Amino acid sequence: MTAVPMVEIHRGPVVESWHSGHAVICDGTGQIVDCWGDPGAVVLPRSSSKMIQALPLVASGAAREAGLGADRLALACASHEGAPLHTRLVGAWLAERGLSEDDLICGPQASRDKELRHAMIREGHAPGRVHNNCSGKHTGFLTLTQHLKAGADYVDPAHPVQIACRTAFEEVTGEASPGFGIDGCSAPNFATTMTGMARAMAFFASAGARGDAQSRAAATLVDAMMAYPLLVAGEGRACTLLMQAATEPVAIKTGAEGFFVAILPKRGMGIAVKIADGATRAAECAIAALLVRLGVLEAGHPDVGRFLNPPVRNWDGLVTGEIRPVAGLAG
Amino acid sequence: MTAVPMVEIHRGPVVESWHSGHAVICDGTGQIVDCWGDPGAVVLPRSSSKMIQALPLVASGAAREAGLGADRLALACASHEGAPLHTRLVGAWLAERGLSEDDLICGPQASRDKELRHAMIREGHAPGRVHNNCSGKHTGFLTLTQHLKAGADYVDPAHPVQIACRTAFEEVTGEASPGFGIDGCSAPNFATTMTGMARAMAFFASAGARGDAQSRAAATLVDAMMAYPLLVAGEGRACTLLMQAATEPVAIKTGAEGFFVAILPKRGMGIAVKIADGATRAAECAIAALLVRLGVLEAGHPDVGRFLNPPVRNWDGLVTGEIRPVAGLAG
Repeated sequence: MTAVPMVEIHRGPVVESWHSGHAVICDGTGQIVDCWGDPGAVVLPRSSSKMIQALPLVASGAAREAGLGADRLALACASHEGAPLHTRLVGAWLAERGLSEDDLICGPQASRDKELRHAMIREGHAPGRVHNNCSGKHTGFLTLTQHLKAGADYVDPAHPVQIACRTAFEEVTGEASPGFGIDGCSAPNFATTMTGMARAMAFFASAGARGDAQSRAAATLVDAMMAYPLLVAGEGRACTLLMQAATEPVAIKTGAEGFFVAILPKRGMGIAVKIADGATRAAECAIAALLVRLGVLEAGHPDVGRFLNPPVRNWDGLVTGEIRPVAGLAG
Repeated sequence: MTAVPMVEIHRGPVVESWHSGHAVICDGTGQIVDCWGDPGAVVLPRSSSKMIQALPLVASGAAREAGLGADRLALACASHEGAPLHTRLVGAWLAERGLSEDDLICGPQASRDKELRHAMIREGHAPGRVHNNCSGKHTGFLTLTQHLKAGADYVDPAHPVQIACRTAFEEVTGEASPGFGIDGCSAPNFATTMTGMARAMAFFASAGARGDAQSRAAATLVDAMMAYPLLVAGEGRACTLLMQAATEPVAIKTGAEGFFVAILPKRGMGIAVKIADGATRAAECAIAALLVRLGVLEAGHPDVGRFLNPPVRNWDGLVTGEIRPVAGLAG
């Protein structure tokens, strides 16, 4: 079994490009409800695993000890755009812990907020680590590091923080991880199967019904993401807009190289999508199509349409094509 | 027949993403020498067809009448990065013809030259049409428009310039075009098959041996591209560096949505590559792999390696993976 066509790019009379991928939907018992492509494909979920990487922060008691509110927990799960909203909150969190931007191990990344990015260019300021989309996750790692009284190199795979992340990852995916890659922010990113990732999201979706520490932590993180969609990504971003547009409370999270996940607490269901070639435009379209199919999003909502059926525009603003999910995905 | 795997993205223990595509190599008689995927796939070659779109400019006598040197003909075939080198030449060409940036129909595009782009942000200058990667092609369209005493809307599919482009396109591809899409610069972009596009490139590669007007024009354009690789793209760009690194004179040209072509005059051969999902990283790797396979590029050359086997680096500059052509492509 291999990846199947999911998204087409139309221009003029032809399908100019197309994207294939895998998708799995699991229920709260970890069983596959529906799937496309290969549910056994081994994948790196990248930033779609941030809520898993935040589990030890909450389950250990570190978050409670540090008095982290839901906004900071949402930031720990975020791939934020480095807008002032995000960097101010990360900066305040670091300062409260007696830390600074220098303690973050993620590299510098230019803000994706155009106004701030241009202002920084005009004023001659180089991008900082706090602008990195993962700076909230890293501040969470640092908070857990303090709680564990561990060393500064919190991205070392042998560091207690990363060992805790791996343990949590294997618990919620229900599989031994075959290894890890180094992520864009220098932290280990653990591999699993498509089914493992959908099962993990179903663990989060069904966590509210269970009382164990890991499930309570999972439910707390989902609630935080759903309460602060703007902190999870940013203005105009897919995760933020799709969460805000949903007809029931859901958590939606992107990952690099064409990954997307969704957590549906009302149904106890989890979704994982991977576009084989890594294209974000296709992953956004595919997750929107699956959520429309399930009735969680309405195709007619303008903020859904901009990911489900976005026009392709050229340099002069003319509509030259359209992105469309394939019929089999849209249902 | 469908697209076949061409390029893999490795990270840690897994192939994180992969790209499939089509490639065809034709000889000077228009016969297929080698192919991958579907040679009959209908494609939009996008900017890889710029040297075809420049044929009427030369074959009509308009270029001679306007006294265009090889540098301007190279710009007419270019997807330039909008560096000062390019915008100054386009500006001078427009001024000589009694035209200005306002006569260009392509939309504005920010310069891909970081220094210029940041300087424009600092000084509050909006991107111009002259910075559009197609501004040389459009100045060529305008020069032909003057020669033909035609109207200002030179991107209208019914305009004499576009009719001439379509006629030339169908002649060199050897196929009736099934239609066109509107390109990033608002000009029509004619569709053909993968074989049609490889055949067109072989027409250019073998043009020096023929004496008809279209072939003389083709040979002139290939010579111009090979004489000015920096004008065809820009500093650090794949087309420029691979042309400069080649062990024999070749013309190489990218197109949006994962297109690449190469013209090999010494062999009379033409190559067309289309990555099905439209990814540039994969198209660059695939064309480099095919040219290494043919002995036109050396795998050990540093400027070849940066497209053939580039490391994937993260925000902190760490190498986290590698892009690799599949074995069947590398030969």
